[in-house]
Amino acid sequence: MSEPSAFGLTPIGHIASPFKQKFAIPRQPALANARGCVRLTPPFNDANCLRGIETYSHLWLLFIFHENLDQGWSPTVRAPRLGGNSRIGVFASRSTFRPNGIGMSVVKNLGVEQLNGQWQLNVGGIDLLDGTPVIHIKPYLPYSDSVADAEAHLLDEHPLPAREVHFTEQATAQLNAQPHTDLQALIIQCLSQDPRPAYRQSQDNDPKTYQVIFYDRDIQWRVENGKVLVTSLQPVS
Amino acid sequence: MSEPSAFGLTPIGHIASPFKQKFAIPRQPALANARGCVRLTPPFNDANCLRGIETYSHLWLLFIFHENLDQGWSPTVRAPRLGGNSRIGVFASRSTFRPNGIGMSVVKNLGVEQLNGQWQLNVGGIDLLDGTPVIHIKPYLPYSDSVADAEAHLLDEHPLPAREVHFTEQATAQLNAQPHTDLQALIIQCLSQDPRPAYRQSQDNDPKTYQVIFYDRDIQWRVENGKVLVTSLQPVS
Repeated sequence: MSEPSAFGLTPIGHIASPFKQKFAIPRQPALANARGCVRLTPPFNDANCLRGIETYSHLWLLFIFHENLDQGWSPTVRAPRLGGNSRIGVFASRSTFRPNGIGMSVVKNLGVEQLNGQWQLNVGGIDLLDGTPVIHIKPYLPYSDSVADAEAHLLDEHPLPAREVHFTEQATAQLNAQPHTDLQALIIQCLSQDPRPAYRQSQDNDPKTYQVIFYDRDIQWRVENGKVLVTSLQPVS
Repeated sequence: MSEPSAFGLTPIGHIASPFKQKFAIPRQPALANARGCVRLTPPFNDANCLRGIETYSHLWLLFIFHENLDQGWSPTVRAPRLGGNSRIGVFASRSTFRPNGIGMSVVKNLGVEQLNGQWQLNVGGIDLLDGTPVIHIKPYLPYSDSVADAEAHLLDEHPLPAREVHFTEQATAQLNAQPHTDLQALIIQCLSQDPRPAYRQSQDNDPKTYQVIFYDRDIQWRVENGKVLVTSLQPVS
C-alpha cells in the first residue's frame, strides 16, 4: 500500500445561510426550518453535476468547520449535554474541534435553480454557518443511512426542554418592519432551545442580555420567568 | 471571509478488512456482516480519543476512496442501477469517482481493544477495502441521522434479487480447511448480490469464471442455471 500522508480538499461550493455566527445555531437542525442554499463554485457550477438530484427528498452535505481549523484538536472534548465538566473522546463526539474538521448534515432538498449564471441548490433544515465551504453533496439513501435500531445513550438521554419565546412591543414592531418572512419562526425555533452556555441553562431569571445575528438583524434577548423575551431587532450596522 | 482554496486531511487510522479489492464488495453493506477494524495511527492511537464510544450502537466512518484519487471526476457518472447507460450528476450519485474522494459508511460498533500497543475499533457491516484511510469517526445519532420520511426514487426502485450460492465438493473441502470462521457467510452474502457488471447480471448461464479475494483466499465462481457456483478457494499466492 502506497499512499500520501495527507490529502487535499477543494470546496465545491459555499453555503448561504441566515446564521452569521455559531451562537444559537440549533444542535438539532430538524427542530428548526432554516433555509439556505449551496452556491456551486467553478468548475462545479454546472447543471450536469446536479442532474437527477430532484429524485431525492434529502441530501448529505459534507463541509468544513472553517472557523475552527486553526484551533487544533485534543483527544477528549467537553460534553455540554453531560453537564459541561465530563470529557469524552473526540471520536465519541460530534465536536467541531477535531482532527480533519469535517462536518456532515442531512438537509431537505428544496430544488435547483439558476440565478445570474450561478447554479444553486436550495436546502432546508440547515444548521450551517453562512460561508461554510462545502466539499461534498450526496443523496440520502434510506436503505443505507437510516438505521432503525441505532442507539445513542450518551447524548439522547437529556433532551433539552423547549422554552416559550415572547417578543416585546418594540421587538414586534421591528419584526413587522423587516423583510425576512421566516425570521420570526427562525427566532422562535432557535431561541426556544436556549442557546445559553450549559451552566446558565438552569437559570430561569438571568440578568444578562444575549445577542444573536440572523440574516442582517441583530437580535437582543434575555431569559425572564423561565421564558425567552426578545427585546430588540436592529439592522446590523 | 478569508479561507484557503484547499484544505489538508490526515488519516487518523486505516481499515483492516477481508475485502482486498473493490470487486464484489456489497453496495448495501447492511446485507453482509463483514467485520473489520479501524487501527488508529499515531498521534490518534490513544484510548482517550475513543472514551465513551461504547455508548453508541452505530458509528459513521468517513474515509478516502484512496484507489480512485488519481482518476479525477466528471460532472456526470453512469448509474449502473439504471441500466448502465443513463448518466446522472455526480452530486446525485454515490459514485466513488468524485471531487474530493470522500466516502461515508454507517458501521456497527463492536468495541475497542488494544493489541500489542495498537488501539483498534472493531466494526461490523463494512463495505470498505482493506487499507482504506479513515479520516473521521463520529457517533450515529438517530435524532439527526435517521430520517424517517426520506425518499430516494432513483436508486431504490430496483433492488437486486438475491441469487442462491452453492459450493462444489472441492470448494467445500477447501472451505473446511481454512481458518476464517466467517468466510463462508461472507461469500454467500457478497456473491448472492451478483457482483458481475450490470450488462451481465441478466445472464443466468455465463461461461466466464470470476475471481474475488476475501481475506487471503482467492475464490473462483461462475453463474450456472441462475445460481452462483463457487468452484475453488485457493490461498493467495
